[in-house]
Amino acid sequence: MDIKIETANRAKETEEVIKEFLPKEEGLQISIFKAMNYSVCAGGKRLRPMLMSETHKLFGGESKALKYFMAAMEYLHTYSLVHDDLPAMDNDDYRRGRLTTHKVFGEDIGILAGDALLNYAFETVSKAFDTDEDKGRIGNAFKVFSQKAGVYGMIGGQCVDVEKEGQEVTLEELNFIHSLKTCALIEASMMIGAILAGADDEDVDKIEKAAHEIGMAFQIQDDILDVTGDEEVLGKPVGSDEKNNKMTYVNHIGLENAKEEVRVRSEKAVDILKSFPEQNEFLNELVIYLISRKK
Amino acid sequence: MDIKIETANRAKETEEVIKEFLPKEEGLQISIFKAMNYSVCAGGKRLRPMLMSETHKLFGGESKALKYFMAAMEYLHTYSLVHDDLPAMDNDDYRRGRLTTHKVFGEDIGILAGDALLNYAFETVSKAFDTDEDKGRIGNAFKVFSQKAGVYGMIGGQCVDVEKEGQEVTLEELNFIHSLKTCALIEASMMIGAILAGADDEDVDKIEKAAHEIGMAFQIQDDILDVTGDEEVLGKPVGSDEKNNKMTYVNHIGLENAKEEVRVRSEKAVDILKSFPEQNEFLNELVIYLISRKK
Repeated sequence: MDIKIETANRAKETEEVIKEFLPKEEGLQISIFKAMNYSVCAGGKRLRPMLMSETHKLFGGESKALKYFMAAMEYLHTYSLVHDDLPAMDNDDYRRGRLTTHKVFGEDIGILAGDALLNYAFETVSKAFDTDEDKGRIGNAFKVFSQKAGVYGMIGGQCVDVEKEGQEVTLEELNFIHSLKTCALIEASMMIGAILAGADDEDVDKIEKAAHEIGMAFQIQDDILDVTGDEEVLGKPVGSDEKNNKMTYVNHIGLENAKEEVRVRSEKAVDILKSFPEQNEFLNELVIYLISRKK
Repeated sequence: MDIKIETANRAKETEEVIKEFLPKEEGLQISIFKAMNYSVCAGGKRLRPMLMSETHKLFGGESKALKYFMAAMEYLHTYSLVHDDLPAMDNDDYRRGRLTTHKVFGEDIGILAGDALLNYAFETVSKAFDTDEDKGRIGNAFKVFSQKAGVYGMIGGQCVDVEKEGQEVTLEELNFIHSLKTCALIEASMMIGAILAGADDEDVDKIEKAAHEIGMAFQIQDDILDVTGDEEVLGKPVGSDEKNNKMTYVNHIGLENAKEEVRVRSEKAVDILKSFPEQNEFLNELVIYLISRKK
């Protein structure tokens, strides 16, 4: 399998699911629809819904509810980027080579577009209840989705990240930030894939652990690329973390140890994934591919 | 029945439900918890959860899922106020006589606290699935909750309101803004109360219509008070809408016609409420009380 081509193919399939539920650009509130669609269609790896779908396959799932959660996860991830980029937050003018949402639509619509995407994520999840799937199972997936996105998940990590800006942080604090800000949504994605496939609690716990290792490896790799990467390939200035005085893994444990950490964590994740009776070869390779990425 | 005392009593009961699910102020992300609790505990009429609970009673409901939706509705309403007050939106320093959330905690935490409350609203809704209530019914309530809060509901209205600021708006546009920005959450509140009590689709539709009239009457009354009210009683400067160049009902149809509109709409609402076989006297009186309010 050519993992690069195969990943691109599945990203394309994922892209179609994401676009299926986007709002039509019509009505008096057309600006909010335009801003939402602009933000969601800015590209990206579509990693979270892809991991959800592949974990679903690992457990032999064929749930009709899955696509709603896949799309919702990407809307949720997108809202977090839109609000991250705001002047009062990271104050970024560009993302993935395009103007950020608030630069195009104004700061007020930027804030509202983030709110809209967050709410729309849940609105999309709620549509899963229209399918004839087990409603208890959908309820469980919804619970994981909302918890991992919230103050005990992504937003909690974002809060600490914002507050510690420009300050020294301990490795423990850095782990806390990454665990919540980056890992939580990856955990949610893979757990929901498993839950909707009917995996039992024990297996969902294992998937959460694997997803945590993937999330950490992914984040540390991000820190490494910020030091070693190629600006053109990366799409953002190399050394921007240092410039922004951000404490990173590389600062804490050094470049070589950080690389080792990525290797150990991704192996741990793959070991867990390989411990299940059925296998998803693509998923196993995807994990390794993700952390060997150059951008 | 002394409606004023009775309303205060039920507001107190509602207050307890709202506070039951608030997060503990502990952990590294303590600021976000403090900002959320500060925002929710700023007082207010607790109108939406109260209307939800009273509509639930009207249909003889005793759902264990109700309290989660009551609390969630107030968190949702609170997030909308927190984001409304931001510098890029209405730029308000005070609300209900207290500093607004972003003035106390900073603009970044202000944005995050709004996000956190919106997400926490859904997180609280998701907990309703832990009860032994009918999960299809909870799913339906969740669907109404998310739709009325989103781009086809509150956020949609907010978007048009923001865009039309300082411009002339037609009465049609004003109706659109109010229907979405103000009525949508009141509709959701009363519909969810009915749904969780097991009301059939036809009755839920009737409740939606009654709630719409209540929301419109409430909003027009707000416009009237801005012209005629007592600054001290009102808690905000009289004439602030005119100062902010906001198009109001009073501007469009004149003070006397606006008063008549409030009367007709609230009567329509009460007529619908009285058309059901069972009665909730308090709810009927509450509707009249709300639009006769001086603040």
